[in-house]
Amino acid sequence: MDIKGAWISHICDLDKNALARLNKRYPSLVTTTEYKEILRSPKIDAVVIATPVRTHFSLAREALLEGKHVLVEKPLAASVREAEQLIKIAQKAQLCLMVDHTFVYSEPVKALRKLMSELGELRYFDSVRVNLGLFQKDINVIWDLAPHDLSILLYLIDQDPEEVSAIGIGHINPDIENTAYLVLKFKNRFIAHFHFNWLSPVKIRQTLVAGSKKMLVYDDLNALEQVKIYDYGVAQHKNKSAPLVDYRTGDIYSPHVEKTEALYNVCNDFVHSIIKDSKPVSDGTFGLRVVRILEAAQYSIKHGGVFVRPENGS
Amino acid sequence: MDIKGAWISHICDLDKNALARLNKRYPSLVTTTEYKEILRSPKIDAVVIATPVRTHFSLAREALLEGKHVLVEKPLAASVREAEQLIKIAQKAQLCLMVDHTFVYSEPVKALRKLMSELGELRYFDSVRVNLGLFQKDINVIWDLAPHDLSILLYLIDQDPEEVSAIGIGHINPDIENTAYLVLKFKNRFIAHFHFNWLSPVKIRQTLVAGSKKMLVYDDLNALEQVKIYDYGVAQHKNKSAPLVDYRTGDIYSPHVEKTEALYNVCNDFVHSIIKDSKPVSDGTFGLRVVRILEAAQYSIKHGGVFVRPENGS
Amino acid sequence: MDIKGAWISHICDLDKNALARLNKRYPSLVTTTEYKEILRSPKIDAVVIATPVRTHFSLAREALLEGKHVLVEKPLAASVREAEQLIKIAQKAQLCLMVDHTFVYSEPVKALRKLMSELGELRYFDSVRVNLGLFQKDINVIWDLAPHDLSILLYLIDQDPEEVSAIGIGHINPDIENTAYLVLKFKNRFIAHFHFNWLSPVKIRQTLVAGSKKMLVYDDLNALEQVKIYDYGVAQHKNKSAPLVDYRTGDIYSPHVEKTEALYNVCNDFVHSIIKDSKPVSDGTFGLRVVRILEAAQYSIKHGGVFVRPENGS
Amino acid sequence: MDIKGAWISHICDLDKNALARLNKRYPSLVTTTEYKEILRSPKIDAVVIATPVRTHFSLAREALLEGKHVLVEKPLAASVREAEQLIKIAQKAQLCLMVDHTFVYSEPVKALRKLMSELGELRYFDSVRVNLGLFQKDINVIWDLAPHDLSILLYLIDQDPEEVSAIGIGHINPDIENTAYLVLKFKNRFIAHFHFNWLSPVKIRQTLVAGSKKMLVYDDLNALEQVKIYDYGVAQHKNKSAPLVDYRTGDIYSPHVEKTEALYNVCNDFVHSIIKDSKPVSDGTFGLRVVRILEAAQYSIKHGGVFVRPENGS
Repeated sequence: MDIKGAWISHICDLDKNALARLNKRYPSLVTTTEYKEILRSPKIDAVVIATPVRTHFSLAREALLEGKHVLVEKPLAASVREAEQLIKIAQKAQLCLMVDHTFVYSEPVKALRKLMSELGELRYFDSVRVNLGLFQKDINVIWDLAPHDLSILLYLIDQDPEEVSAIGIGHINPDIENTAYLVLKFKNRFIAHFHFNWLSPVKIRQTLVAGSKKMLVYDDLNALEQVKIYDYGVAQHKNKSAPLVDYRTGDIYSPHVEKTEALYNVCNDFVHSIIKDSKPVSDGTFGLRVVRILEAAQYSIKHGGVFVRPENGS
Repeated sequence: MDIKGAWISHICDLDKNALARLNKRYPSLVTTTEYKEILRSPKIDAVVIATPVRTHFSLAREALLEGKHVLVEKPLAASVREAEQLIKIAQKAQLCLMVDHTFVYSEPVKALRKLMSELGELRYFDSVRVNLGLFQKDINVIWDLAPHDLSILLYLIDQDPEEVSAIGIGHINPDIENTAYLVLKFKNRFIAHFHFNWLSPVKIRQTLVAGSKKMLVYDDLNALEQVKIYDYGVAQHKNKSAPLVDYRTGDIYSPHVEKTEALYNVCNDFVHSIIKDSKPVSDGTFGLRVVRILEAAQYSIKHGGVFVRPENGS
Repeated sequence: MDIKGAWISHICDLDKNALARLNKRYPSLVTTTEYKEILRSPKIDAVVIATPVRTHFSLAREALLEGKHVLVEKPLAASVREAEQLIKIAQKAQLCLMVDHTFVYSEPVKALRKLMSELGELRYFDSVRVNLGLFQKDINVIWDLAPHDLSILLYLIDQDPEEVSAIGIGHINPDIENTAYLVLKFKNRFIAHFHFNWLSPVKIRQTLVAGSKKMLVYDDLNALEQVKIYDYGVAQHKNKSAPLVDYRTGDIYSPHVEKTEALYNVCNDFVHSIIKDSKPVSDGTFGLRVVRILEAAQYSIKHGGVFVRPENGS
Repeated sequence: MDIKGAWISHICDLDKNALARLNKRYPSLVTTTEYKEILRSPKIDAVVIATPVRTHFSLAREALLEGKHVLVEKPLAASVREAEQLIKIAQKAQLCLMVDHTFVYSEPVKALRKLMSELGELRYFDSVRVNLGLFQKDINVIWDLAPHDLSILLYLIDQDPEEVSAIGIGHINPDIENTAYLVLKFKNRFIAHFHFNWLSPVKIRQTLVAGSKKMLVYDDLNALEQVKIYDYGVAQHKNKSAPLVDYRTGDIYSPHVEKTEALYNVCNDFVHSIIKDSKPVSDGTFGLRVVRILEAAQYSIKHGGVFVRPENGS
């Protein structure tokens, strides 16, 4: 992947074999097991942090304090408090802090966003992301998969949920839920529901979004028609006698979706934001909105599915 | 549909036009708008009640008291108390009380039941039954659709849930939820989750059942392969070092499913149970188990999704 | 099915058990094993002939000569000569002669026809109609299934093929081909190809139609999106250097298709044509166009797949 | 891709920009625009030729004469005569000559081969490989796509066709067919049919194989169930009265398919064959069998679809 204006010069990994393989393929890369080497190199402007979630905060913080722009794997951090601190540090140092919410940069999701204005009043968002594995050691299925669908949802609408509830079961390790359901309640009877599962025989990545005027289906596994908009509507009958509701079933339309790779768009936005001193789509504040919901979900899942108000920031 | 040992002689409907159309096609049928005519006819042994849920109790009760065997549309009644009373009346009068939980009699569900013993320890049951319409006037989407999936679940396993939670939204009529999610918690970390929706652009009728040894997928809309069993497993690694879990992905197998119509099996079981004085699969007690969950779900959905213990009977 | 202006009064079948079952259900119908009874009844205006192909000619001829309007099962007759004679007899007697090419009356095919003008210059029509069974005793898979797809094709375009070729194999009975491929060549490099098969494990009913500007897919088994139009194009690059062709891949659009049953439309067109003295869509001449291709295909399949010019009529 | 016992040392391409990009990524590779440099390097044991079909013969011949083992892109050569010469040269020089018929090395096709013995007597093989593009400049859609399906077929069965027929149309360039149908006739009424198309709105890669006892479906685009075997049968009724045939529809079974990449298997077989002095699965003789059919198809397509006997070699 060639991004104009930037290139990869150093790579750090604790696994020496991985570094050796990289070295063989890309001999011009400098490899190291000491991340501090990278953070202290004056030739380096920006770092990408792809490490376990629990390490995001300390690594990103240190990088920002060393004056590096930071692109961190999703989710931004392991808590709202951590995320807020990173945002503050980046603001103060006038550095770019960005989260790799890849789906927000994917062409199908960009196509969905263009269609949102046709939906009318939002009714529900229902998302299923299930497959077999990959079990994580230190985070449950919500921290692993929900950042994808939460970032998609937050990117599509400009609201944050009023209440969050989550339930889940850890079948293999009771402390690490592998099957979970997440519910978000928004204003005006809009509801979002998610099914996350590492233990499904089939792979499903399907999202339904219903509005009062039209409905969307986003099926990430449908090669040709990932995005479809249905000119379907259900409304209360004006004449309140006889049948309760009016149904309208019209055409179905699947817009052409560009083929640009999401990861290319991610890197491009990062580099472009640094060069132009502008905000990336998935900046620290966006990442914080996701972490707020994750934190609330985590509390709920450990407290029997109780509805929780996400923390509204300091 | 010809069932040995029984035939339809009378039909009652409040809609005279409907009766006229029936009369034209089946002139030998006696039609009436007075159900009492049927209940009092000494030539009639059994009645089928297909009316709004709120009328099931009084009609079934009256029919039983008149000495008729009763097959009632699902769900059996509008409350646990009603259902229990009907069971008592039927027992006392030694009459057959049966509920038309059609799916329990469908060939795919019968095929699923045969495969259950291969699953190992049950982990989750996830069911989606969504489509556009048909909005009901007097009951919400749970009372309308859940009897199908709850009867399937109860037929497949021999357990009742310990706790029930439901949330839902009425977008058209705030009092009648059209989009709802239902959760059942069982012993041993087995969980069941259901998505019911009258407001989905696409029709989905898919159920996943995961066990420790194998997994099932039941897709009612897959013409040729409604039932599939996956020889897939995920288990904790015995050697507790390194990777958390072992994955096993083996063959997929779709057993041949008979083509007999479910409704034929329903009628056959009803008539056979009357003649042989035996219990139908979907008898009053089975119907009561479904109503217990519905009642708990109804309480939960009106109380913010709180987990409720289904009433354990008198 | 209630068609305004007509009703069924008599039914003839050689199978007395079938008649008995009908009598039980519809006691007002007159049933007989003697078709001449029907043809000679002065109260009867029109007859529907649903019998083996080899009997179409003599039965339809006799009915027309008795002054009855005739709706005959597809194909119209077993040869071009027979079909032409029936048309002449009907014309002379000023009677309606119609063929039940049901698909021409189906809503998806009507929707396809509306889209044809957007395709640009026609390139190919590729149709697959395969499933397991139902083996016929006296006709091969082409005479059995091709009338469907040929009538669809002829209804969509206003051309007849210049050359016809067919190959096939009879695996069960060498004289009766159960697997066959049919090719039609038209003017201007437009080609149609068909795969017919009684011996396929899966059921496929899919047709691709490509034009220079857009392309269609008709999938009769896709419940929600039977008809799709693709805004896709491939054209020779104007600048003849470098790449040979330009690709354009735009949106995909699936128009809403009405739910009216095709058979209802068939009966309606038949009755309407009789009452209004107008021509049905699938009149004798339309049926003859299909038979011409069938006859040429039959010759070709028995002569090693040689290309044959369909007989151009008397 | 790391293959034990071999590594890539030189790359030749006429496009200097392509070489520059490669050099940047893999600086240890020697790049050149002079293929003779590679052929004459004494340190090089084997070459891979991935060039236009028309150049395969001269490049492979020269490489063999220089003592290099050769892996050539499919098809082996542009004519039977060329293919036969290459085989002779390789035999004489005791060098490995292999064709990259990748599908023969793919795990789904290997799984299919294991199932072939269950099919009983072979009836038909029907293959569809269609999508939009990629138009070739110098070869038609048969030379481009048929090597895939022909190699699969020849790998699955141990027979060569007795007769070959092909028809096709060049809609963009009349000389280069973009839509084509190919038929192979084998002994014992076994028939193979192929649909190749660069001009299809949808991508289809599906093969049906029917035997007297069981049937196979190979769908390369079905992520989870690429290979399915149907326990379906159709046979002549022994009691020759009444119904013509017996149908049997049993279970459907989808064996687990390994995930190893086909290209890895290809390279592995090439290197292993060189080291062990053994024959690769897709050796020159196998490649020649494919070219024989291609040459016959090319003759047929230019002569109106006439059936042609493939040349049986010198």
